[in-house]
Amino acid sequence: MHVMAYGPAEFVEQELPSADAIGPFLDKWPVLWLNVDGLGDVEAIRKFGEMFGIHPLALEDVINVHQRPKVEPYDKYLFIVMQMLLAGEMLDTEQLSLFLGGNFVLTFQEQPGGDCFAQIRDRIRKNHGRIRAAGPDYLTYSLLDAVVDNYFPVLERYGERLEDVEQEVVTKPRRETLARIHDIKRDLLTLRRAVWPMREALNSLLREDNPFIIRDTRTYLRDCYDHSVRIIDILEMDRETAFGLLETYLSSVSNRMNEVIKVLTIITTIFMPLTFIAGIYGMNFNHMPELNWPWGYPLVMGSMAVIAAGMLHYFHRKGWLG
Amino acid sequence: MHVMAYGPAEFVEQELPSADAIGPFLDKWPVLWLNVDGLGDVEAIRKFGEMFGIHPLALEDVINVHQRPKVEPYDKYLFIVMQMLLAGEMLDTEQLSLFLGGNFVLTFQEQPGGDCFAQIRDRIRKNHGRIRAAGPDYLTYSLLDAVVDNYFPVLERYGERLEDVEQEVVTKPRRETLARIHDIKRDLLTLRRAVWPMREALNSLLREDNPFIIRDTRTYLRDCYDHSVRIIDILEMDRETAFGLLETYLSSVSNRMNEVIKVLTIITTIFMPLTFIAGIYGMNFNHMPELNWPWGYPLVMGSMAVIAAGMLHYFHRKGWLG
Amino acid sequence: MHVMAYGPAEFVEQELPSADAIGPFLDKWPVLWLNVDGLGDVEAIRKFGEMFGIHPLALEDVINVHQRPKVEPYDKYLFIVMQMLLAGEMLDTEQLSLFLGGNFVLTFQEQPGGDCFAQIRDRIRKNHGRIRAAGPDYLTYSLLDAVVDNYFPVLERYGERLEDVEQEVVTKPRRETLARIHDIKRDLLTLRRAVWPMREALNSLLREDNPFIIRDTRTYLRDCYDHSVRIIDILEMDRETAFGLLETYLSSVSNRMNEVIKVLTIITTIFMPLTFIAGIYGMNFNHMPELNWPWGYPLVMGSMAVIAAGMLHYFHRKGWLG
Amino acid sequence: MHVMAYGPAEFVEQELPSADAIGPFLDKWPVLWLNVDGLGDVEAIRKFGEMFGIHPLALEDVINVHQRPKVEPYDKYLFIVMQMLLAGEMLDTEQLSLFLGGNFVLTFQEQPGGDCFAQIRDRIRKNHGRIRAAGPDYLTYSLLDAVVDNYFPVLERYGERLEDVEQEVVTKPRRETLARIHDIKRDLLTLRRAVWPMREALNSLLREDNPFIIRDTRTYLRDCYDHSVRIIDILEMDRETAFGLLETYLSSVSNRMNEVIKVLTIITTIFMPLTFIAGIYGMNFNHMPELNWPWGYPLVMGSMAVIAAGMLHYFHRKGWLG
Amino acid sequence: MHVMAYGPAEFVEQELPSADAIGPFLDKWPVLWLNVDGLGDVEAIRKFGEMFGIHPLALEDVINVHQRPKVEPYDKYLFIVMQMLLAGEMLDTEQLSLFLGGNFVLTFQEQPGGDCFAQIRDRIRKNHGRIRAAGPDYLTYSLLDAVVDNYFPVLERYGERLEDVEQEVVTKPRRETLARIHDIKRDLLTLRRAVWPMREALNSLLREDNPFIIRDTRTYLRDCYDHSVRIIDILEMDRETAFGLLETYLSSVSNRMNEVIKVLTIITTIFMPLTFIAGIYGMNFNHMPELNWPWGYPLVMGSMAVIAAGMLHYFHRKGWLG
Repeated sequence: MHVMAYGPAEFVEQELPSADAIGPFLDKWPVLWLNVDGLGDVEAIRKFGEMFGIHPLALEDVINVHQRPKVEPYDKYLFIVMQMLLAGEMLDTEQLSLFLGGNFVLTFQEQPGGDCFAQIRDRIRKNHGRIRAAGPDYLTYSLLDAVVDNYFPVLERYGERLEDVEQEVVTKPRRETLARIHDIKRDLLTLRRAVWPMREALNSLLREDNPFIIRDTRTYLRDCYDHSVRIIDILEMDRETAFGLLETYLSSVSNRMNEVIKVLTIITTIFMPLTFIAGIYGMNFNHMPELNWPWGYPLVMGSMAVIAAGMLHYFHRKGWLG
Repeated sequence: MHVMAYGPAEFVEQELPSADAIGPFLDKWPVLWLNVDGLGDVEAIRKFGEMFGIHPLALEDVINVHQRPKVEPYDKYLFIVMQMLLAGEMLDTEQLSLFLGGNFVLTFQEQPGGDCFAQIRDRIRKNHGRIRAAGPDYLTYSLLDAVVDNYFPVLERYGERLEDVEQEVVTKPRRETLARIHDIKRDLLTLRRAVWPMREALNSLLREDNPFIIRDTRTYLRDCYDHSVRIIDILEMDRETAFGLLETYLSSVSNRMNEVIKVLTIITTIFMPLTFIAGIYGMNFNHMPELNWPWGYPLVMGSMAVIAAGMLHYFHRKGWLG
Repeated sequence: MHVMAYGPAEFVEQELPSADAIGPFLDKWPVLWLNVDGLGDVEAIRKFGEMFGIHPLALEDVINVHQRPKVEPYDKYLFIVMQMLLAGEMLDTEQLSLFLGGNFVLTFQEQPGGDCFAQIRDRIRKNHGRIRAAGPDYLTYSLLDAVVDNYFPVLERYGERLEDVEQEVVTKPRRETLARIHDIKRDLLTLRRAVWPMREALNSLLREDNPFIIRDTRTYLRDCYDHSVRIIDILEMDRETAFGLLETYLSSVSNRMNEVIKVLTIITTIFMPLTFIAGIYGMNFNHMPELNWPWGYPLVMGSMAVIAAGMLHYFHRKGWLG
Repeated sequence: MHVMAYGPAEFVEQELPSADAIGPFLDKWPVLWLNVDGLGDVEAIRKFGEMFGIHPLALEDVINVHQRPKVEPYDKYLFIVMQMLLAGEMLDTEQLSLFLGGNFVLTFQEQPGGDCFAQIRDRIRKNHGRIRAAGPDYLTYSLLDAVVDNYFPVLERYGERLEDVEQEVVTKPRRETLARIHDIKRDLLTLRRAVWPMREALNSLLREDNPFIIRDTRTYLRDCYDHSVRIIDILEMDRETAFGLLETYLSSVSNRMNEVIKVLTIITTIFMPLTFIAGIYGMNFNHMPELNWPWGYPLVMGSMAVIAAGMLHYFHRKGWLG
Repeated sequence: MHVMAYGPAEFVEQELPSADAIGPFLDKWPVLWLNVDGLGDVEAIRKFGEMFGIHPLALEDVINVHQRPKVEPYDKYLFIVMQMLLAGEMLDTEQLSLFLGGNFVLTFQEQPGGDCFAQIRDRIRKNHGRIRAAGPDYLTYSLLDAVVDNYFPVLERYGERLEDVEQEVVTKPRRETLARIHDIKRDLLTLRRAVWPMREALNSLLREDNPFIIRDTRTYLRDCYDHSVRIIDILEMDRETAFGLLETYLSSVSNRMNEVIKVLTIITTIFMPLTFIAGIYGMNFNHMPELNWPWGYPLVMGSMAVIAAGMLHYFHRKGWLG
């Protein structure tokens, strides 16, 4: 539990030992930002809910994570839910629940530990930019913007992964390649399901004439909304690429089968007639004049060579030999 | 036929011996909940319909089950149809028809036996939460919420089933695997067809300014609506997974064919030339000098071994041997 | 040409010998229902059009069948077009054109012979239900309801047909199976093209505040609309099933090819090495010591048996033998 | 350049030698129809544009053909663009640009030569129907209706072509069949791209309350709009059929491969074991007692026949023999 | 940095040495067009932003390229983003950021070097057309029109590329063909993602009643909007073609496999029985009367020829021989 309270001139930052310690800050500052990192202490969350007048259902949504990104207007505050991406090998999301009131911003993060707000805290501390001069809506915008922009590096990672798989599909497609493509496709779908409602939510912030966001901040939010649209564009592009890789993989499996069958056919087509000829002169008829010719054996061997060369020439002309 | 009548202070519960026994309860209680379990006694249903002033068409929809989830506003009541999921191996749904009036809630369940309302009855009996203090709209919300939340465990079961099938597809795909995938796909589609209109219906409860649902309850219903949207999300995700499994299955069939054909080609390619050589020295020409060489036989056997080794080396380099 | 004229108390029914014979009925009865069965007598249709004040374009739509289901409001009447299903093996539709005026209902059926209105005529004759007491809008509802409900048995037939084909696909897929699946798919598409605009048309009857349909009847039409939505649901489900059958068919063709190739591979893999060994000892070298061993022949035969058994064991372990 | 000027009573028709010759007709007649056939004489088109007060951009759209069908309202006229179908083997369209003013209709056709308006000219000349009595909006409707109805014979031709290809796919699918299916699919897509905006344009004529089309004519245009919807329906149906043909073609290619592989497998499976047996008795061991049996040869031949018969029986039971 | 300032009568053109040099032009001319080519000098861009009163967020969008095409209304100007196509082998886009104010047009191009505005500059210089007489909105239209029309030659290039690939697929499909098709598909998708929002943006310029675009110019923009719709049409058509090529490619791979397997089957089917017969007469039984017949050898050779001819006849009748 971390509190930052600030106005254009003053600024206080404090770790809260308990929920009650928030008392002295209430309604004393132009902007009060209370950030709760991790949802372990349900009792404290309930207490905050009471103190800030949060509806029990909204609190439930804070605690039962896996909500879809959304914006819900209440009388005294806006309730915003977003999914933050966590750094790491696996795709992992964390729910951010944000309450924007007249003079406070409450944020609840699903898991304790690293978030993407360090820069914002710095800007508040050092009074960089317009954040200290602006209201809680601008802080909300900054937080949402950080959440949205955090999607881009993840998308880049997936772009690189797709290029890796593409390389693999073209050079030596293996059975695991298919699984990798499907994994990427599923992750992209998960991302898409997180981003679409996020875009919707940001759009509803733009549209609605709610009293918590002033016109000036809305211009900034429009920028944030644009980013979410771009994320969706990249996602769709990536999904299309993944789909194309799948097709290429399947077609390359088909191509390799073709190649194998060609080898089979070439070998069979060359050796079957030769073996047949050898078989003929292996017959035990008493009256086979060729067997007694002095040049019989070399003649047969010669015609076999001619037949084999003819076959090879035929396959070469058909383009089957490589 | 089960009656629960309650207000903030009082509470009565009774099994009805006949439809007429409802008489004394009418218009005497803040909230009257009549639950009819099973649609066998059509006569009683008609009587209830008359007593509560239900339109004959709505009653018909109660009796002719397999209606789509919907909300129909009438002058004196709301008519709500939902599909409840039944526990069990197979996917099975049961129609819940609900009438919400000014001071009553009528529910008709398709089949007698277990429903998912036990907890709600308990809360009424023990006066837990705000249910006794609230009106029939809050009871309606509680019932709908129970119906919606009952979808989640079923979805979880399908999630597990999909994981099972995925295991099967990867390790040893069989012919029945395809049927299982299609079964799951069809069930998910059935669920989807139940949930989409349910979402629509819940949304219409939110939007419309009907006199039966007060503003406070609408906040709760919004939560219920959110759940229905999450169910749809999970369903779509599962369908995507099922689709991916189908593709993996088909590609694994293709892969196995590839493998079989490789074995065929390797065997043919190795033994055809060898058999041909053996055939040559099985010919009965009188003038075949090699046949008289003392080292002819070992030489031929040696070259055969060399050829076989060469072929194996070639296949090994091509990656066909494993 | 059949006339039914009725009010709450009176009722007259008559076959018209000619178009002019309708004269005495005009504007004399609360509800006048004129049904023209078959569009052969274009002259009579034109006469009716004049007498009831129908726009020439609407009359043209009556005669040029294959119109999409639609509702067109005119000043003095509503023009409704529906597609009725005909009983029979093949999917066949017949256009029903209906004009709903202030005190009359005109219906034109494409083909003479059986329709699905027998029950409605009976209800008028015997004064069952509320039909005699209600106006022409209720009669219109009854007719539309009969048309819509007539789709359900046809859908059931297609459901059964799909089950038949499913059986066929699983047990012994043949070439005709594919054609049958495509036939069903096309029929379902045709049905869909008939039902979607029908749903639209019914919806427009619900929405629009036209003077020809009173509020009470609209409640009934909502029921009829619900049925049309259910028909669409069933159709979509059936199409999905047909699509799944197609996939299963294609995959089963693939599976059978796999099986055939396995047989080929097993036979080749067992007999090629054996034939090669036999070929070796068929060579005519003078110096082949094995040929003179007394146990040479049994030894070779024994090792051949061992090789064959080894191959079979290998295929068994790979699961190729059944 | 062809002028028809008419009112209920009078009628004049003239070929214009030059653009200026239109002068005497201007604002003298209830309806003036100037038809320019072919866009070669750009100068004349510009002059007409000036005389009728056409916006330069609209004139540019007249000259730069390949516009999408559209309706653009200007202050003094409506600008309508349609795509007319040309008769002929190949699918070919021609742009019709139409200006509807208070007392004139201007039409520009892309190519000189046959159009589908002969019947309309006849009706004007012979004063058939209501065309002479009506205003320029009715003439516009007649022209649009002629354009729309001209799509039906083309669609019929494609329907027949699809049937031809279907026959071909079922009886003897060849490589060109695939190309033919794709050609038809592409043509249908081209048609679809022409008809969809046409439908939109006609719909906008219906909806908008423009002063150029009186209410009565709008009823006629609704009919024309219905036709465009039907064209779209037929197109969708045809595309679905083409798609089904593609699937049938691919599956029949697969089936034929299956057949070829079956022949291969049957031959191999029968002759490999027999050849092996022959190989055994071709071995040159000194101690092979069977070789000296008098019945050795017939016995071996008999067992070979038994083996072959057994194999055939097996394949017959498996249904591989036809 | 290039400045063109003009009115109906006067005209000045100048390369700016530094950002400050714009000062004398401000608010002195009916239309001031400042074009910044390349985004290297961020400081200058910021200065321009200040001087023209541009919002910092809009400036950020100018610098951070890869924005989606969009139109954003601000109080004192419109902010328009487009993607220009660059000439060259590869598909490459460059962001054009345009600010339209009451008496100025600011354009920022991503990369220095060639743009598609040469003709517009010429028209200004030589006072061709209405550009000098019109306001900055007409200049904006001219610029957007140039950007949009620049898509057509690129689309034509893709059309030609598709025809090339089609030729390749039909005559000699290679492995790279698949990659080429996918490359084209991806490029078309990229184009589509650039054009769709462009269409949206142009449409919003048409719709909104903003004070920066007068009614007359809107007519011109409608034309520009039409072009963007046509581009989308062509793109969709091309994507459909690319999709069809993919299918044709896959089916041709399948066809070639068929051909290979046919060769294999024909060879096997002809030579297996012959080899078997030769094997029979290679057996060493003592009692094989045929071996001693004088005509034994020719008889066997004759029957072999008959069998081979029969097989060939069978394959010929089946149409396998070419």
